[in-house]
Amino acid sequence: MINIKEDERLAKLNHSGAHLLAQAVKHLYPQAKFWVGPVIEEGFYYDIDLKDVTLTEEDLPKIEKEMKKIVKDGKKIIRHEITKEQALDMFKDDEYKIDLIERMPENEIISCYSQGDFTDLCRGPHVDSTKELKYFKLLKVSGAYFKGDSKNKMLQRIYGICFDNEEDLNKHLEFLEECRQRDHRKIGKDLEIFMFADLVGKGLPMWLPNGFIIRRTLIDYITDKEIDLGYKHVMTPSLGNVDLYKTSGHWDHYKDDMFPAMELDDESYVLRPMNCPHHMMMFKSKLHSYRDLPVRIAEIANDFRYEASGAVCGIERTRAFTQNDSHIFCRPDQIKDEFKKVINLILDVYHDFGFKDFSFRLSLRDKNDTEKYFGNDELWIKSEQALREVLDEVEADYYEAEGEAAFYGPKLDVQVKSAIGHDVTLSTIQLDYQLPERFELTYIDETGAKVRPVVIHRAILGSLDRFIAFLLEETKGNLPLWLAPTQVEIIPVSTEHHSEYAKEIEELLLAQKIRVETDFRNEKLGYKMREAQTKKIPYSLVIGDNEKENNTVTYRYHGKEEKVTVTVDEFINLVKKEVKEKIRH
Amino acid sequence: MINIKEDERLAKLNHSGAHLLAQAVKHLYPQAKFWVGPVIEEGFYYDIDLKDVTLTEEDLPKIEKEMKKIVKDGKKIIRHEITKEQALDMFKDDEYKIDLIERMPENEIISCYSQGDFTDLCRGPHVDSTKELKYFKLLKVSGAYFKGDSKNKMLQRIYGICFDNEEDLNKHLEFLEECRQRDHRKIGKDLEIFMFADLVGKGLPMWLPNGFIIRRTLIDYITDKEIDLGYKHVMTPSLGNVDLYKTSGHWDHYKDDMFPAMELDDESYVLRPMNCPHHMMMFKSKLHSYRDLPVRIAEIANDFRYEASGAVCGIERTRAFTQNDSHIFCRPDQIKDEFKKVINLILDVYHDFGFKDFSFRLSLRDKNDTEKYFGNDELWIKSEQALREVLDEVEADYYEAEGEAAFYGPKLDVQVKSAIGHDVTLSTIQLDYQLPERFELTYIDETGAKVRPVVIHRAILGSLDRFIAFLLEETKGNLPLWLAPTQVEIIPVSTEHHSEYAKEIEELLLAQKIRVETDFRNEKLGYKMREAQTKKIPYSLVIGDNEKENNTVTYRYHGKEEKVTVTVDEFINLVKKEVKEKIRH
Repeated sequence: MINIKEDERLAKLNHSGAHLLAQAVKHLYPQAKFWVGPVIEEGFYYDIDLKDVTLTEEDLPKIEKEMKKIVKDGKKIIRHEITKEQALDMFKDDEYKIDLIERMPENEIISCYSQGDFTDLCRGPHVDSTKELKYFKLLKVSGAYFKGDSKNKMLQRIYGICFDNEEDLNKHLEFLEECRQRDHRKIGKDLEIFMFADLVGKGLPMWLPNGFIIRRTLIDYITDKEIDLGYKHVMTPSLGNVDLYKTSGHWDHYKDDMFPAMELDDESYVLRPMNCPHHMMMFKSKLHSYRDLPVRIAEIANDFRYEASGAVCGIERTRAFTQNDSHIFCRPDQIKDEFKKVINLILDVYHDFGFKDFSFRLSLRDKNDTEKYFGNDELWIKSEQALREVLDEVEADYYEAEGEAAFYGPKLDVQVKSAIGHDVTLSTIQLDYQLPERFELTYIDETGAKVRPVVIHRAILGSLDRFIAFLLEETKGNLPLWLAPTQVEIIPVSTEHHSEYAKEIEELLLAQKIRVETDFRNEKLGYKMREAQTKKIPYSLVIGDNEKENNTVTYRYHGKEEKVTVTVDEFINLVKKEVKEKIRH
Repeated sequence: MINIKEDERLAKLNHSGAHLLAQAVKHLYPQAKFWVGPVIEEGFYYDIDLKDVTLTEEDLPKIEKEMKKIVKDGKKIIRHEITKEQALDMFKDDEYKIDLIERMPENEIISCYSQGDFTDLCRGPHVDSTKELKYFKLLKVSGAYFKGDSKNKMLQRIYGICFDNEEDLNKHLEFLEECRQRDHRKIGKDLEIFMFADLVGKGLPMWLPNGFIIRRTLIDYITDKEIDLGYKHVMTPSLGNVDLYKTSGHWDHYKDDMFPAMELDDESYVLRPMNCPHHMMMFKSKLHSYRDLPVRIAEIANDFRYEASGAVCGIERTRAFTQNDSHIFCRPDQIKDEFKKVINLILDVYHDFGFKDFSFRLSLRDKNDTEKYFGNDELWIKSEQALREVLDEVEADYYEAEGEAAFYGPKLDVQVKSAIGHDVTLSTIQLDYQLPERFELTYIDETGAKVRPVVIHRAILGSLDRFIAFLLEETKGNLPLWLAPTQVEIIPVSTEHHSEYAKEIEELLLAQKIRVETDFRNEKLGYKMREAQTKKIPYSLVIGDNEKENNTVTYRYHGKEEKVTVTVDEFINLVKKEVKEKIRH
């Protein structure tokens, strides 16, 4: 995404765009008074006091029309320089500008810019004429408290963007529309995947039936895969005694990101932000021989973190989330092999989801920073080299990031490029020499001595919630068949004549564990077809006379024109094959 | 289970048993001083100060032997009455007795009982001679703080029980041994199903890999069944804004059983004790027509309740647990039908688990108690009558309990008789007119008017944790094949000659999703067989020369003598059939 603020020409253009907006607003709403109108990464905005008037998106075309008139008129944009005294006099009826001017140094020369009947206090620079502002667009309007303080008056903030030419503007607007359509919050709402409620709380998603099916399918998918690979799944409670987090070190270093503690009898409990301490306790509860290692404890775990209310975002960033977590307890000589196995698992999973544009970031310590990293040189050198070798062996595309390791060891993050160009960290593998030390974990080695195991933290799907947000954005809600909440929509052409046959087919599909719904409503075929499309249901099955007579079904895949008539068995086999092979269309 | 305290004869006998115990202890440990020795439901105990000596279970036979000697000696038990002054003088070297005497009223006549060389302060009554105390048993010894205060000295508490005849004593000891063997805490530990750790917290179970498999199997079982019956599963967060519980009424009436609130920014959040409020918010988030009802929202939900640390018990009573919960939102005319469907689901599930000894308790209001029950006479009469009719229609064995209804409506609890004779409430169905009112829920009826739905709360397996505790106690850990964490143990007779074939079979079984383990250790066959028995793995497969040559396996079911040799395919089909049909041996 383009950053307007960082491009000199575009920054100037957008700054002038803000003045153009203000002039048009003044024409339409003479009562308007103006606070500030800066350039931002996304373009520009202006905060405006319109007295009793509250703008909505519907008012924007009218303002744009007035802006176009001013552009056509093509007035020159002229800079004046005045003294603070002159400025205070010039804007004496405008409390907002007075507020700004009063805070300027005593002998400052103050600049103003005029274009026709509009003059604004401004540092500049600006373009030479309103003619240059032809390719703009107003984007949205929202409320904004004066000086950002909720005790102050609410102003109207209008956002816009300006480009040099039509092509750039259109490309950008297309990109914004793409972002809007891919916004997981919109898709999640449209497809009834999750919801929020103020009374339940900020950042606390409630997964609706469709969302539950997606979650359950993903959880079963990754759990089965992990069990096949020798992981042992467990379930541990979402909270723990504060002493547990004192032992792990989280209480000292991570407390601000945790929920507050709860006092119970004479103990303190706290919701857990991560699962390592519980898994350490589980490993510790049993005697281990070197022969039993590696022990791979895995959990689909519910975690809680304090996120500022401004930072929570849909299901991407929440206060309650579910991790696909595991801790591998191994001998030092097993690190390389275990790392390799985890990388192969990641590659396998990404293949199933069709993720292709990703890279591995190997985070190493900064050798010179002895504060940030624990101090066993040999361990660092050996383990960093081991990870490099693994990455070379699996021929992974990776880059090194010095000084990005965790305190407790080097790590490997997988960065996936999203459809709208963001870098998203989905998976992570981290080597840890510290927690085994803090929890005094041991195993019995070949000589009968008690020695420390190494811990590998790893997450494949990462936070399930964020993963689903990512999936929704990548697919625009067109989930592949195996993940789609409803896989098949059966649509009888006539409720009167075809419902019975439709019901028969529904039962055949249900018996095969295919997620099917039938639209028995007495509505037009076209209406029902369109609704199945809106709900992004992969297969629509139209059932009419022809199908009923020949014991067939006619299917159409979401978004495709082609209609195919097959026997019911053929259709069931097609669906089962697609689910099994995780086909994407 | 017998209640000693409530049986006059047994109470007297056990009271004398306590004196017999004290006399024997005094003989063996002359330094012993005695605090109190009451009769309890389970028999008797005596709290004793033995100075530096700490008793263990291993000391009990020695004490029992001394008690038997005293019984054989057959001294009379004689009551004396003395003044408080005389008592203070008599026990002047015994700070414990002085403590007791000093708290007695000034002119009280104090009674003592003597038997041979032993005299104790006691209200009585007692049996006439130590001869009558022939059939006793000491049960256990534990520490107990003087006056129950952890700041005081730790005394030794010895527990025992006494009967009139050998048969009663033996029957009771058998019963206690049965209870011990069925104790889910013991089974859970032996079979590595769950664990606890002080650092994690009281009443917070950690489910080990074996426990996870049981949970996952149960969750899949009930979720699939519910989905087939039209339930919509969801997932909602384990906490909520305190305002949510103020709206529901829990904050006023249930706060003491909840975890304390957490302050976040300027809001209060609290771990949820139940899921109704979240499900109410979900129903409320959408417009509903009378045609869409019933809406059945279901969740395998994590809940948290404050239980006193003395009340928590294994996984039966915990502070964090998982409910198989649902709320059915329906029209008044659908109540009867929905109730019937839930009862049928309960009967179906109980059939799958083989529960036969259970009854329905229909809890009704007390008509005269207008405080405890909300006041719509017509609603009560109609709904109570509807439930009666449903129970009659399904020919359920039920009894009525007046005054046991909830404030918000009548309910139906299912009481299952456990193997050791306890009545356990597993399932419940409750009618609720109040929460729809408090959350202002509505649907649009046939006339277009907004009207209130009725809510049915229901739980089938109830708390999964308690359900598993119950299953472990019922089966003594011998779970049916479909629930067993490991279903098949493969045992090669010789590691050298049969491991390869064993591995082949293991892979064939794994491919069929059969949970199998192979014991490749170089140990004797008998040793490996016994271990598989101890782990209560349903099928043991012994693989020797014969099996290898003929491509067969020889199986034995846990606890049975019979060995059967079949082809691998036959064995796989046998296992799959047993799992599918949930066979119990």
